[in-house]
Amino acid sequence: MRACATAKVVAWHRALRKALHSCAFLGPNLPDVWVPRENNTSPHTLFQETLQWDNGHNAVILKGKPIAKQIRLEVADEIRRMKSVIGKFPRLAVVLVGDRRDSHTFIHIKLKACDQVGIETVVAQLPEKCAENELLDVVSSFNDDKDVHGIIVQLPLPQHLDEEKIINVVSPEKDVDGFHPLNMGNLAIRGRKPFFVPCAPKGCIELLLKHGVEIKGKRAVIIGRSKIVGLPTSLLLQRHHATVSMLHAYTKNPEQITSEADIVIADVGIPHIVRGNWLKRGTVVIDMGTNQVKDPSGQGFHVTGDVCFEEAVKVASAITPVPGGVGPVTISMLLSNTLDSAKRAFGMV
Amino acid sequence: MRACATAKVVAWHRALRKALHSCAFLGPNLPDVWVPRENNTSPHTLFQETLQWDNGHNAVILKGKPIAKQIRLEVADEIRRMKSVIGKFPRLAVVLVGDRRDSHTFIHIKLKACDQVGIETVVAQLPEKCAENELLDVVSSFNDDKDVHGIIVQLPLPQHLDEEKIINVVSPEKDVDGFHPLNMGNLAIRGRKPFFVPCAPKGCIELLLKHGVEIKGKRAVIIGRSKIVGLPTSLLLQRHHATVSMLHAYTKNPEQITSEADIVIADVGIPHIVRGNWLKRGTVVIDMGTNQVKDPSGQGFHVTGDVCFEEAVKVASAITPVPGGVGPVTISMLLSNTLDSAKRAFGMV
Repeated sequence: MRACATAKVVAWHRALRKALHSCAFLGPNLPDVWVPRENNTSPHTLFQETLQWDNGHNAVILKGKPIAKQIRLEVADEIRRMKSVIGKFPRLAVVLVGDRRDSHTFIHIKLKACDQVGIETVVAQLPEKCAENELLDVVSSFNDDKDVHGIIVQLPLPQHLDEEKIINVVSPEKDVDGFHPLNMGNLAIRGRKPFFVPCAPKGCIELLLKHGVEIKGKRAVIIGRSKIVGLPTSLLLQRHHATVSMLHAYTKNPEQITSEADIVIADVGIPHIVRGNWLKRGTVVIDMGTNQVKDPSGQGFHVTGDVCFEEAVKVASAITPVPGGVGPVTISMLLSNTLDSAKRAFGMV
Repeated sequence: MRACATAKVVAWHRALRKALHSCAFLGPNLPDVWVPRENNTSPHTLFQETLQWDNGHNAVILKGKPIAKQIRLEVADEIRRMKSVIGKFPRLAVVLVGDRRDSHTFIHIKLKACDQVGIETVVAQLPEKCAENELLDVVSSFNDDKDVHGIIVQLPLPQHLDEEKIINVVSPEKDVDGFHPLNMGNLAIRGRKPFFVPCAPKGCIELLLKHGVEIKGKRAVIIGRSKIVGLPTSLLLQRHHATVSMLHAYTKNPEQITSEADIVIADVGIPHIVRGNWLKRGTVVIDMGTNQVKDPSGQGFHVTGDVCFEEAVKVASAITPVPGGVGPVTISMLLSNTLDSAKRAFGMV
């Protein structure tokens, strides 16, 4: 195998590229420096590392509320200073079509959070049967309004409206949800900086970073590949140099792959699909599911995650609760994105 | 575990979305219909399936040249008809900066291939030390030229030029390399259709499809995450519903993950880094590496891949050679992308 012995010959030119500065959320922009492996005769060695806090007891609960509160305080503080120094403040435009109860609830939560930190909001509410052009005109008018720094179009839209067309019209520079394909493309391409990163994935990374979970070099498995959670979370984790696997409905034996992961992120939309026996001992579990499940009494609903918490808490080293995990941090990230946009507009960055 | 027994409650609304029409390269646009798993007590079952042609003998060699030739014949035929019907033909603009020998070689190969199928080319060659504005002006003029349907800026550019800025200026509708972030974002987001898919990943999928390799539900591992090969290949394989894992220089025990994969794609840039013992018996290997290695005589170079072919051919069910694998198909994909662009410009699609 003479040819194989020449493996040391090459240094990949990408490895020589200067590491660029990058913000914390987008991960350290490290070059790939491959270490050629020779005479490897034991390819099946199991992971020998376990996370520091794997102590055989119940998992650490990764509570989102304290982190969310801290971020909100910081955002509110910055906005106060912004007002006092330049007399200006961030403004978020919210576009809501139709009368979906869940959409109204989400919007209410967002508006309340904005109000608490000093972000002014303007809501455009359109009827369920509004024409596409009417909606496009509303979005365009917010694009043109220099006093609006962020625009969110609450999803899902009624069936007759082309979601792709609407999202494409939102200015990438005001796309605080981070759903525009230009922002998604710049999130996917290493070394680039999107204007905005979607809020839930950003919340997920914030939770991991704030709790000191090391991401670089860890095996992360994401169950579910939605464009608002699973996809951008996978892209963000890759920027933090995790080894990422994406599972979905066509994955055979998902439990085999999750059971090898150091970090498991669930975004499926099926309550408790992730069982305790899907997990490696000491893994970190981020549950991004928010499923409404009927109460046993048959009256009312409660919110539950995609992970069977009662089982997972006995196996994992750390786990987010639902509710009270990623959710509150996600809302804080919307505030943070809107503030960032206003700062950019005011030339404060 | 009453709560866990409720797993059947939910049907994810994404699962109900109507499957959209999609072109073959972008994969079938199937909704994710999750099957809730209950009472799963054996999460560690091994894969029981093997690919059909796993017969214990040497691998099938996935030759690229015959496929590339077939595509070129088809492209040439379409262009002939285009000329005879509307008197027009595709035109590709090539921008080359500096005197890198490898860049000149690549451009020569591309120009020759264009000439063979009837694509007219126009080359803008700029000196190594050209100003950024000069280069931007050249790209902009091609954007504005309605007789130009495709633009490629040969990479890498000299250090003093901002590659990101240049690529961003190429019109996404003429970006036949598929590197613009808008095209990358639309490739990443399921259900969307980018104007163009990068040529090497498209060549990889073409090879798999033409050789009848099933992708849906298979475990695919990509070693390397470059923005022109690894990243878009992972996005494309996900659209074909493979379960994709991305490995890179920070991955610990890459050989453990590759040894579980049904499809292994190498894009590292280190000759023979992928050894025989990295592979599961019966796997399909796509080697996208093209490394120049010194000849044993010390005189001259030869091209070799990232996979130790001599070892892998004894384990895999199918493998691409280097040279003669993905490379020729990649060039054909550039021709195909340019033709598609011209057809779009002429209103023929």
